[in-house]
Amino acid sequence: MAGSNFGTLFTLTSFGESHGIALGGVIDGMPANIEIDFEAIQSELDRRKPGQSDLVSPRKEKDVVEFLSGFFDGKSTGTSIGFIIKNDDQQSKDYENIKDSFRPSHADYTYAEKYGIRDYRGGGRSSARETVARVVAGALAKQVLNHLDIRFSTYVCQVGTISLEQLGFYPKELIEASLVRCPNESTAYKMIQEIEQTRLAGDTIGGLIACCIENVPAGIGEPVFDKLHAELAKAMLSINAVKGFEIGSGFAAAAMKGSEHNDLFNADGSTKSNHSGGIQGGISNGMPIEFKVAFKPVASILQTQEMLTKDGALKSSEIKGRHDACVVPRAVPIVEAMAAMVILDFYLRNKSVHL
Amino acid sequence: MAGSNFGTLFTLTSFGESHGIALGGVIDGMPANIEIDFEAIQSELDRRKPGQSDLVSPRKEKDVVEFLSGFFDGKSTGTSIGFIIKNDDQQSKDYENIKDSFRPSHADYTYAEKYGIRDYRGGGRSSARETVARVVAGALAKQVLNHLDIRFSTYVCQVGTISLEQLGFYPKELIEASLVRCPNESTAYKMIQEIEQTRLAGDTIGGLIACCIENVPAGIGEPVFDKLHAELAKAMLSINAVKGFEIGSGFAAAAMKGSEHNDLFNADGSTKSNHSGGIQGGISNGMPIEFKVAFKPVASILQTQEMLTKDGALKSSEIKGRHDACVVPRAVPIVEAMAAMVILDFYLRNKSVHL
Amino acid sequence: MAGSNFGTLFTLTSFGESHGIALGGVIDGMPANIEIDFEAIQSELDRRKPGQSDLVSPRKEKDVVEFLSGFFDGKSTGTSIGFIIKNDDQQSKDYENIKDSFRPSHADYTYAEKYGIRDYRGGGRSSARETVARVVAGALAKQVLNHLDIRFSTYVCQVGTISLEQLGFYPKELIEASLVRCPNESTAYKMIQEIEQTRLAGDTIGGLIACCIENVPAGIGEPVFDKLHAELAKAMLSINAVKGFEIGSGFAAAAMKGSEHNDLFNADGSTKSNHSGGIQGGISNGMPIEFKVAFKPVASILQTQEMLTKDGALKSSEIKGRHDACVVPRAVPIVEAMAAMVILDFYLRNKSVHL
Amino acid sequence: MAGSNFGTLFTLTSFGESHGIALGGVIDGMPANIEIDFEAIQSELDRRKPGQSDLVSPRKEKDVVEFLSGFFDGKSTGTSIGFIIKNDDQQSKDYENIKDSFRPSHADYTYAEKYGIRDYRGGGRSSARETVARVVAGALAKQVLNHLDIRFSTYVCQVGTISLEQLGFYPKELIEASLVRCPNESTAYKMIQEIEQTRLAGDTIGGLIACCIENVPAGIGEPVFDKLHAELAKAMLSINAVKGFEIGSGFAAAAMKGSEHNDLFNADGSTKSNHSGGIQGGISNGMPIEFKVAFKPVASILQTQEMLTKDGALKSSEIKGRHDACVVPRAVPIVEAMAAMVILDFYLRNKSVHL
Repeated sequence: MAGSNFGTLFTLTSFGESHGIALGGVIDGMPANIEIDFEAIQSELDRRKPGQSDLVSPRKEKDVVEFLSGFFDGKSTGTSIGFIIKNDDQQSKDYENIKDSFRPSHADYTYAEKYGIRDYRGGGRSSARETVARVVAGALAKQVLNHLDIRFSTYVCQVGTISLEQLGFYPKELIEASLVRCPNESTAYKMIQEIEQTRLAGDTIGGLIACCIENVPAGIGEPVFDKLHAELAKAMLSINAVKGFEIGSGFAAAAMKGSEHNDLFNADGSTKSNHSGGIQGGISNGMPIEFKVAFKPVASILQTQEMLTKDGALKSSEIKGRHDACVVPRAVPIVEAMAAMVILDFYLRNKSVHL
Repeated sequence: MAGSNFGTLFTLTSFGESHGIALGGVIDGMPANIEIDFEAIQSELDRRKPGQSDLVSPRKEKDVVEFLSGFFDGKSTGTSIGFIIKNDDQQSKDYENIKDSFRPSHADYTYAEKYGIRDYRGGGRSSARETVARVVAGALAKQVLNHLDIRFSTYVCQVGTISLEQLGFYPKELIEASLVRCPNESTAYKMIQEIEQTRLAGDTIGGLIACCIENVPAGIGEPVFDKLHAELAKAMLSINAVKGFEIGSGFAAAAMKGSEHNDLFNADGSTKSNHSGGIQGGISNGMPIEFKVAFKPVASILQTQEMLTKDGALKSSEIKGRHDACVVPRAVPIVEAMAAMVILDFYLRNKSVHL
Repeated sequence: MAGSNFGTLFTLTSFGESHGIALGGVIDGMPANIEIDFEAIQSELDRRKPGQSDLVSPRKEKDVVEFLSGFFDGKSTGTSIGFIIKNDDQQSKDYENIKDSFRPSHADYTYAEKYGIRDYRGGGRSSARETVARVVAGALAKQVLNHLDIRFSTYVCQVGTISLEQLGFYPKELIEASLVRCPNESTAYKMIQEIEQTRLAGDTIGGLIACCIENVPAGIGEPVFDKLHAELAKAMLSINAVKGFEIGSGFAAAAMKGSEHNDLFNADGSTKSNHSGGIQGGISNGMPIEFKVAFKPVASILQTQEMLTKDGALKSSEIKGRHDACVVPRAVPIVEAMAAMVILDFYLRNKSVHL
Repeated sequence: MAGSNFGTLFTLTSFGESHGIALGGVIDGMPANIEIDFEAIQSELDRRKPGQSDLVSPRKEKDVVEFLSGFFDGKSTGTSIGFIIKNDDQQSKDYENIKDSFRPSHADYTYAEKYGIRDYRGGGRSSARETVARVVAGALAKQVLNHLDIRFSTYVCQVGTISLEQLGFYPKELIEASLVRCPNESTAYKMIQEIEQTRLAGDTIGGLIACCIENVPAGIGEPVFDKLHAELAKAMLSINAVKGFEIGSGFAAAAMKGSEHNDLFNADGSTKSNHSGGIQGGISNGMPIEFKVAFKPVASILQTQEMLTKDGALKSSEIKGRHDACVVPRAVPIVEAMAAMVILDFYLRNKSVHL
């Protein structure tokens, strides 16, 4: 396991570099006999792809997924699903200037230190472009979870200092209506302005994404090390540029008293508040699962910065390539994809608890 | 893998309930021929155990670890290490009143929903008492990492609203000198007062723990899904009562610009700032690894609360048993143990990158 | 994963050396709410233990299993099961003479080469004494499989050149009625004589064990790498002294024609012959699963042999300690235990194929 | 893990059906910075592909591997390697007649029972065509092992009743000079005649493959469950049509005495005989690793046989499609590929034994 595999029963093993021939992966453990909506998968990829608006990277990728196995007559066969997404718009010459030097806060230096060799074009394997494979697997997971009526609402809740006041489960239409994928129109407007100003200054800016999952039945999750929110945390922190994760009350819990934090029961087993974020002792309690993910500003800024050369010199240089001024709008489907993979995986794992 | 296993090459598989005969586990993948300081392991357990002061649970446990295999002539043999810690001070009758009802914000309800059976005494397997096994494995990991000069500094940096201003690498002596394991004397004093007042009110309070790891060589961590900080996040969120994790700049990154967040290089490959928290692209860069962990207030408050009975009724009841008013002082060695296990595991995994 | 873990959903992680304090393990993934017959577990251990007759090692071990967790009110809780078996009759001084030398065809040399350190007393971790942990896990697996009416018949079908003519599913009473666990009385008698003569000559002898499993439903097993018989093969070859595995027609298939080997169907899906051994394409077809396991003669013979010393000298020496002249009678419960663990694990894995 | 993943540190995850668009996989854990001979990989595929001679399936596949990631400037980057092999010569209409019926001794029935859906064209995922992905991964593993001077000799040692008398390490030239991949010319001639006669009779025939691996250093393999030969057994039994595995003395050991079976040492740690097959206690001892693999006759015979229909009727039918009269000649590179993957995986695992 050298890092390209995720999941226990529903698994994705992915491959591909930013400027290679293609990216893709193998999904194993897909339940059998599920009718697939292939257009829905492609539309998830379209949500992630660059070039959607002025706010994001202008790289033009069609990001068309080609499935090579695992389906028959439009249904999943239960065997492994191979797929590829070809790279079209590689402008590798943009990266000639970093061939022998390391950009600050990128993975250039750490990959070189680890492997002694690196594909410097667009960050190679460390590029966020690898997340296309996650979106494909997540889209399949969501189609399975649809049969269980499990629903996701994922959206941008903060960009820079502009934040959405009211969290909760927002309908997808509201989220997708906004260029920044923030479901509140006036907040979204401010976020767009913030990103636009940042972009014009040749800078980048961070943000937060919220995810709310409804109808996860009680009992999903494993005790001790494989707590459901522990795996969600790993899933989120494995996404490029993520610096933090919190479930339910999160960091605010540190300043709270037990008497205010405890989620008192209703008679039907639901709770009056949801500081637990839908998970207690690592296992879902039937309430909505609610977590937030923090993204740092993209490291590729369009300003002159000092890079480190292989030979240990510092040289001023500009980063070329096409980058996002703010990554969170495009990261929404990635967060949702990873969440869906985790929930489906743990749903399947839970089936072995009873004979 | 039903949740009681952690790690890939250096692994802990644990067992045990709060009020069972014993807890313990199996550690596999311990490097061979390492001379062991058994007293140092016991002293880590002593840091975690209840009854250390008025601030924490008065349960009296000796928490003596007995090793049953894996050592010969005082050295590790490289084969699996079995160990047990016996339970001495079980007062199971304290739990008679929750036999048929579920405490709010505990795992009582979710375990019952998942398994259809539960050991209600002290929370059974969901009790934080299971962390004794983690401390044993972490203590062994730290002894291995000592040979590589990798050092840990883990301490309480917030209790309620009282927080430590300056983070960094504090010497263990300073941390252990304080009842709350906060290395600044005056902040520690305020934290103790805060906990004491909370305790007297029959309430509990949350907090934050910071961990700083020095001398991790560059190149440790795997790409894509098994990023080093993703596994650290999972490790931390798997600890009871943890609600959040952040690495480096963490949630503050959301409000930052790329131009301020980027860590510019020095000529030796170190960086002028460390917003990355020592990890870039999932792989260590040689800078200190710095993260924070948020703990909720303990759910067992000594006030009358409504519980849910098996039959769907709500009844007012008091939680008995012996509990911590604030869990973070005792959680410090647990956070450190999990961090040590992750670092050693990934250090060993990295050995296979080159022939 | 340093070798002491077995299984995917139903897992055993074991520890312990021949002359250490105790052996044991952790069983994870036990289905919840199964009523346990603890005496039945102990009686499986009694079948494996030394000192049962003149035919086997005279070492006197009570082999009493102590469960430390995972049960409540006589039922499995679904959480991890810790257990230990104490060593009583360690005569470590028997092994002083091999402290600095390697016995032929033992693991002494290979452990020393691998680890650079070894517990030479009784073979340490390489001793077949580790199989006690397997028998405990297998006994639990069998109790679960009982609920599905899955039954095992495991017996000795060859000792030296004496072999049982008719294979099939023999009742346990017939098998256990014989000192060598061969269900045919006259064959058993010849086997006993063969072993007795071998023992008196200070020598040892090999043998074969057959295993037949009835009522495994069709559909158990995974495609490609995790074929059901592939995992059975691994399980069997992981047992000390095993040199070969065959399923159904096995090695005889090499000399067969397709027209005679093919198992023609009956209208109900069963087959007229069972050369497939109950598994086709890695997946059970509902017919009895039938395989055979070859054991080499025990390496510890009571004759003078040349050992290799640490310093590269050859010295004539006698092996002390207490050993079996033929290992297969005591290996029967071990083979059955491993088979039960595999079947249960794959039964549980199969539950995730359908939503 | 639904069966399409193999290995712990060096892993292959594969996909693809006999008559789908393409087969392929992801190789993860490839050591970095290894210069690759891509032609050597293709030539391994050529050894496996159909249409090589009259003896094997006439299906015409170019079996050209396309690598999509994981290499840069002709060297491995250490990150995951995606690859595909397109299907060219699918004659799916050959399989219309089995759309609703199950061929005897194929996986048709078991896949239908397991998944409730199956790609009936050419056996779908259960087809031996999936082994192309194994050959690619094995070819890469061999190139890594070349740097350690670890060498493989794999050849046919039995077809029907014709068997090679002398086993051992034969040079590749001798093996490849023969259409049946048997290194002895006169035995090979008899085998060819046997296969030819069988083919003309519309029948198929089984066989044995021997594998000998030289220069594996002592110390490779893990104790207890992950013994080196246990994983080799699993690897071999996971290949289509394999019914048995034996290491060293194998099944013959059952009839041997310890005094003749024990491998006595030479002063340099090598042994005078090699009944152990190069592995003791699950760990290599530096002697050649020697094992044999038994293959059943291919189930697809060109004779009228009874099939079972979905509706439970038996109907006489002929199998169409293009099949091998004897699979062992083409299985030689598959056996070698799997062996290479296991040896490399365990070589890498062993690196973590010492700090």
